[in-house]
Amino acid sequence: MIRSLYRTRDGQLHTDLEPGAFAAARQDAEGLLWIDFVEEPPEVCEPILHDTFGFHPLAVDDALRETHVPKVDDWGEYLYLVLHAIAFNEQSLDESRHDVTRTDTYELDIFLGKNYLVSHHDRQIVAVDRVWELCHRDERHLQKGADHLLYRIADELVTSYMPAVEEMDAAFDEFEDQIVANPDPGTLEHLFALKRVLLHHRRILTPQREVLNKLARDDYAVIDADSRIFFRDVYDHMVRLHDINESMRDLVGGALDTYLSVINNRMNDTIKTLTIITTMFMPLTFVTGFFGMNFFLPPGEAPIWATRVLFFVMVVMMIVIPIIMFGWMRKRAWM
Amino acid sequence: MIRSLYRTRDGQLHTDLEPGAFAAARQDAEGLLWIDFVEEPPEVCEPILHDTFGFHPLAVDDALRETHVPKVDDWGEYLYLVLHAIAFNEQSLDESRHDVTRTDTYELDIFLGKNYLVSHHDRQIVAVDRVWELCHRDERHLQKGADHLLYRIADELVTSYMPAVEEMDAAFDEFEDQIVANPDPGTLEHLFALKRVLLHHRRILTPQREVLNKLARDDYAVIDADSRIFFRDVYDHMVRLHDINESMRDLVGGALDTYLSVINNRMNDTIKTLTIITTMFMPLTFVTGFFGMNFFLPPGEAPIWATRVLFFVMVVMMIVIPIIMFGWMRKRAWM
Amino acid sequence: MIRSLYRTRDGQLHTDLEPGAFAAARQDAEGLLWIDFVEEPPEVCEPILHDTFGFHPLAVDDALRETHVPKVDDWGEYLYLVLHAIAFNEQSLDESRHDVTRTDTYELDIFLGKNYLVSHHDRQIVAVDRVWELCHRDERHLQKGADHLLYRIADELVTSYMPAVEEMDAAFDEFEDQIVANPDPGTLEHLFALKRVLLHHRRILTPQREVLNKLARDDYAVIDADSRIFFRDVYDHMVRLHDINESMRDLVGGALDTYLSVINNRMNDTIKTLTIITTMFMPLTFVTGFFGMNFFLPPGEAPIWATRVLFFVMVVMMIVIPIIMFGWMRKRAWM
Amino acid sequence: MIRSLYRTRDGQLHTDLEPGAFAAARQDAEGLLWIDFVEEPPEVCEPILHDTFGFHPLAVDDALRETHVPKVDDWGEYLYLVLHAIAFNEQSLDESRHDVTRTDTYELDIFLGKNYLVSHHDRQIVAVDRVWELCHRDERHLQKGADHLLYRIADELVTSYMPAVEEMDAAFDEFEDQIVANPDPGTLEHLFALKRVLLHHRRILTPQREVLNKLARDDYAVIDADSRIFFRDVYDHMVRLHDINESMRDLVGGALDTYLSVINNRMNDTIKTLTIITTMFMPLTFVTGFFGMNFFLPPGEAPIWATRVLFFVMVVMMIVIPIIMFGWMRKRAWM
Amino acid sequence: MIRSLYRTRDGQLHTDLEPGAFAAARQDAEGLLWIDFVEEPPEVCEPILHDTFGFHPLAVDDALRETHVPKVDDWGEYLYLVLHAIAFNEQSLDESRHDVTRTDTYELDIFLGKNYLVSHHDRQIVAVDRVWELCHRDERHLQKGADHLLYRIADELVTSYMPAVEEMDAAFDEFEDQIVANPDPGTLEHLFALKRVLLHHRRILTPQREVLNKLARDDYAVIDADSRIFFRDVYDHMVRLHDINESMRDLVGGALDTYLSVINNRMNDTIKTLTIITTMFMPLTFVTGFFGMNFFLPPGEAPIWATRVLFFVMVVMMIVIPIIMFGWMRKRAWM
Repeated sequence: MIRSLYRTRDGQLHTDLEPGAFAAARQDAEGLLWIDFVEEPPEVCEPILHDTFGFHPLAVDDALRETHVPKVDDWGEYLYLVLHAIAFNEQSLDESRHDVTRTDTYELDIFLGKNYLVSHHDRQIVAVDRVWELCHRDERHLQKGADHLLYRIADELVTSYMPAVEEMDAAFDEFEDQIVANPDPGTLEHLFALKRVLLHHRRILTPQREVLNKLARDDYAVIDADSRIFFRDVYDHMVRLHDINESMRDLVGGALDTYLSVINNRMNDTIKTLTIITTMFMPLTFVTGFFGMNFFLPPGEAPIWATRVLFFVMVVMMIVIPIIMFGWMRKRAWM
Repeated sequence: MIRSLYRTRDGQLHTDLEPGAFAAARQDAEGLLWIDFVEEPPEVCEPILHDTFGFHPLAVDDALRETHVPKVDDWGEYLYLVLHAIAFNEQSLDESRHDVTRTDTYELDIFLGKNYLVSHHDRQIVAVDRVWELCHRDERHLQKGADHLLYRIADELVTSYMPAVEEMDAAFDEFEDQIVANPDPGTLEHLFALKRVLLHHRRILTPQREVLNKLARDDYAVIDADSRIFFRDVYDHMVRLHDINESMRDLVGGALDTYLSVINNRMNDTIKTLTIITTMFMPLTFVTGFFGMNFFLPPGEAPIWATRVLFFVMVVMMIVIPIIMFGWMRKRAWM
Repeated sequence: MIRSLYRTRDGQLHTDLEPGAFAAARQDAEGLLWIDFVEEPPEVCEPILHDTFGFHPLAVDDALRETHVPKVDDWGEYLYLVLHAIAFNEQSLDESRHDVTRTDTYELDIFLGKNYLVSHHDRQIVAVDRVWELCHRDERHLQKGADHLLYRIADELVTSYMPAVEEMDAAFDEFEDQIVANPDPGTLEHLFALKRVLLHHRRILTPQREVLNKLARDDYAVIDADSRIFFRDVYDHMVRLHDINESMRDLVGGALDTYLSVINNRMNDTIKTLTIITTMFMPLTFVTGFFGMNFFLPPGEAPIWATRVLFFVMVVMMIVIPIIMFGWMRKRAWM
Repeated sequence: MIRSLYRTRDGQLHTDLEPGAFAAARQDAEGLLWIDFVEEPPEVCEPILHDTFGFHPLAVDDALRETHVPKVDDWGEYLYLVLHAIAFNEQSLDESRHDVTRTDTYELDIFLGKNYLVSHHDRQIVAVDRVWELCHRDERHLQKGADHLLYRIADELVTSYMPAVEEMDAAFDEFEDQIVANPDPGTLEHLFALKRVLLHHRRILTPQREVLNKLARDDYAVIDADSRIFFRDVYDHMVRLHDINESMRDLVGGALDTYLSVINNRMNDTIKTLTIITTMFMPLTFVTGFFGMNFFLPPGEAPIWATRVLFFVMVVMMIVIPIIMFGWMRKRAWM
Repeated sequence: MIRSLYRTRDGQLHTDLEPGAFAAARQDAEGLLWIDFVEEPPEVCEPILHDTFGFHPLAVDDALRETHVPKVDDWGEYLYLVLHAIAFNEQSLDESRHDVTRTDTYELDIFLGKNYLVSHHDRQIVAVDRVWELCHRDERHLQKGADHLLYRIADELVTSYMPAVEEMDAAFDEFEDQIVANPDPGTLEHLFALKRVLLHHRRILTPQREVLNKLARDDYAVIDADSRIFFRDVYDHMVRLHDINESMRDLVGGALDTYLSVINNRMNDTIKTLTIITTMFMPLTFVTGFFGMNFFLPPGEAPIWATRVLFFVMVVMMIVIPIIMFGWMRKRAWM
């Protein structure tokens, strides 16, 4: 889908221009043109990007064919930006909370000129849709220029990370409780999946933060000095997201260690139980075996000491020995 | 609650001005106005911040609606600062020491102008109250200007971290002793909670340190060059707090490893006990079984070697075998 | 093998010049000469590099005799570059996927002048062959100058890393599943081999990224300012490769921890099984031993309580005792 | 105790001046005055520091009331330095070597002017005493100026770290041997105490190194450019100390891991012993049980195969079965 | 031993000058003098270094009395350098390969002037001897000046690290195989020793790399700008050595983890064996005990069901029960 928004210099709003009309709109230095390529194949996008806008072939290639971590390239008359939006896999939406480990990020390519913004993405991105609708509802957002439009999009993108991060935090809390209450290998798999997501996010968040830092600090021809404070605001959000992500990575690492400790703790308890049983019954079994041989033999063959008195002595031993063994064991092995 | 302190150019102190009087007080370039918004909803604060003081909408938004890590934004005629105060959760105050893991941090937003300071916080902050009372008691603190007032607040904030850090240190000492003396999963949970608090503090302390470094080094219109040495002093405290925090993080990580080692140590002792019992009684049981079959049979069916002499031989075996087994076991398994 | 490509100033293409003709071709300031030394011994390469091209002895030594991590040395009229290509060991090509751990990197030495490029490698490198063929098929690639040729080679080198990285990622996924489903020491060995490869790659990727960063940013006499954006593009790919490599190192470290946790989990299960058996049968064996002594004795010697009723009481005990023991054990050791 | 040394411009040495004479001595621009406050309460030191020397209240506060990590503050006419001396706790001096984990650091505050040095410490510091005596014995040390005196003190401080570091190294060696030879929880506690000391040292050594780096590189009014090379020398020692400290931290971390491995190794040996015993005697016990039922019954009730020949067959089984079991076990469990 | 090489301005070579002749040789601005102090006590070296060459007392002290990590101090007319040579302990030379963990580094102090080089070392260093002999054999090495001589020595030093590093790599490979095939505490000790060597090397290699970086980049009076490329070459080697060292540290850390995993793996196997035996024989022993009581009693006292048919039923149970138990156990504990 190719959709477009064009606000002329005198404030009129045109939507869904014909691709043939893009060139004229681009010439209107005081208008604002936004073209959004959604899930379009490269062969459709390329002629427009290349011929109508005259973007450098390398930049067009980056946008259409390749996967990139977030970056900003300054091509003088326009900027080429790669940003990433967070997205939950579709099937995870109607499932339980643990699916937070199924989040992914979608690439969003943006060309920003003085009076136009061209965006390209292979998947539908909720944050872009939201800005699109906002511009439809309230065209003032288009009055402030293309750089302000970029700010809106970046702000929505970053805002959309927050719920994901919060869900991950909640999911992690639950894992943590599970680890202490009922550690099983499934928890381990969830932790590992969470670790992967966090590593993936870090690979995105670190350069994305850097992109916003550059937009807020560096001098670009297509960004007004006054707009930089807006990017500074988005940058502050990115910093916080990045810090939370790093903290969670640290916690997940600690959770793996904790898991092992809890398992070993339980193993110790199991072994203690085994030891108690063995310590108490093995001597008893020996006593029954020993006396069994000698005690109740037919009269005449039995040793003289095999009397009923002795039988009760033996029963007393059977009560006292386990108690002694149990005491000895406690002392030896801190039970 | 909105409370205000206003020292006119001729040294008079007015408290609790009407909001309508803020604008006039702000104009008094040689006076000093401090307005403190405590637990006020955004719709009350916003008109004052925006209309009376003319703060930038982004800064007002940051202060009223969003959560930030500490930062300082230079808006020319005023600074916008985010600082964090440490706070114990209320319920933890009357409980035992372990609740140190329940500390939280509260955001404090400050706008600093040449002749005014506007502070905003959603929770009551003890450090702010203390400076407030100080200014009431001794108005000289207001003579030195708004930047000195900011120094006072920052100093109190940082000072209030110290007892929390000391309690955490004490709590950690106790955990450490528990780990060696009596490791149980509860200790693990406490350690994990402590780790979380330390990570949270790091996320606050690192940027807060940076804010104070900037105040001490950078050139801001609203901060006198002479005041910078005061911020330098607060910065030194932040450095120390940050270092202690990092050391504790390192120790907590080591404590998790130690916990595992102690548990395994104990498990080894338990298994040794089990092995001693088994090694001594299993051969004995076999001996009683073996001789039991052959020894005390009715005369005529018994093997010729089933005599009383042999019976005592067997008893001797029952004494000697465990001793041999015990020696062999010691050699094999370092007991 | 020494092979050469020479495009004269008027666009003619000569291949496989005699070494004697190199000097003349080098003088043609508007032509382009590419000489490629493949698996040639130093004594063949040295005279050409040294006498015909006049490269510094240190650079020639670096190229012919020594192993280096990627670097770029600026010798004024020419650059000396070391790059590394990824390569699968030959035997691994026809085997299964796990052989990803057998990847190696081959050194590629390049001398880049204004109008020539001399490459030297001790092993055949697929990426170089691919560019060689490309230049044969379409001589326009030679029109853009020696620096563009270097870009082509660098781009192919970096591109050839991608499948290896993807295979490693897939192999790691499989290891991870194996760890949870069926951990055995073989997995451990594979993980360790993977770790080694990742460390080796890091040693290559980090400086290689730096080389491309320098080519994209620094001012070299032999690289046109316009060509730098191409190296910037290759640099972006290197950044991504490096990030993926670091993430995988992190994951492999976590996988080693997970392995231990899974093994301990299973050990715990085994010990529980052992404990269940022991807890249930040891008391039973004692009961049979105890009653065996007293119960079915010849009439007259048996205690008065040795009746059939009691026999059934004993059978009931044999059913009830294991149930009680099992309950006690569950409570003690969370089973 | 307040002690003082004053060398007049004409080379005379006065000791233990009255506090009232400090002001005059301080005016003697070509003399050198050293005042040392040892274990003096703040209310004694403050008037002298504040009134006689005119130090800034913040610096005086830092010196007298607060704990700081090493730092250097440039107050123009004087420097305020915080350094730390290493100290063994008193009780540890007459005990064995393990007390190395009881080392602590004492804060030393120094004010350095053009012609004076004021030092303040709450505990006696051996390194300061040594320089004090040195100056008494050989007044040439005072001729070279206050900055040279500071160098002497810093050099002694750093030198006094060395034996502590060497003892820690020796103690660690011993711990390491203990871990492999005889791991017990006491070793763990010692290791943990060592870790704490190393972390504490790092918190001191890192900023102390930085202080000396600044003294060696930066331009301070009160330090001659020629003296900087001396501080450079002390800085080199600090670098080495810091590196050794970091290496030891790394080794202690590895020792904790090793401890766990050794314990598990031993546990494995214990379990092997248990398994050997069980594997060999359980089948034997079953054989005696099985044949016991059938073998030596009264003639007529016994099965026809219950002959003496079979008895020896059974004895042979009792010899062969354990051998077979032992072989099976070895194969299953790498013993 | 003090040995000297002196090449006069007219190309004559004098060896083993009298110490008295050093001063004159030093004056010959176009000659080249190399003095090498080997295992000489400080009192012999000091007068020459101090009086004849006029080196600063701090530098002389550093060279003769103290231990330093590599560094370079610029004293204007001369450089003072500390480098480290790698050395195998003597006894390790004729022993097996594992002694790689016994490598040590020896300090080499060098004073480099425009026309002289003074080296000092407390132990014989092979790399220095090699350059010494080289200069004897081929005096052209002396023609290129003192800085080139320094390059030769530095190059030999770095080259001599390579075999040590390769042996360590080979030794590590062997350890790694041992860990998986046959882990014992001896391997752990070897790993730990290797870790120590690697940490020691890092402490040397990191600053030594920095020294060579400075020689290659900085502007020193006694080093020709043209010579810097040679030091750049040595620097590249240092970078590679340092990277290999860091990779090996990483691998050794992973090997410690792997050791633990392998041990636990084996422990699990041992416990499985124990559990199999127990699971199969405990029920059997119970069955023999139970039936033993009731089965072969004298006629009249036996229950009516004690027939031969039942005997074979019992034998069948003894075959079936272990099979059932084994199946149950497998299911419970993944065997």
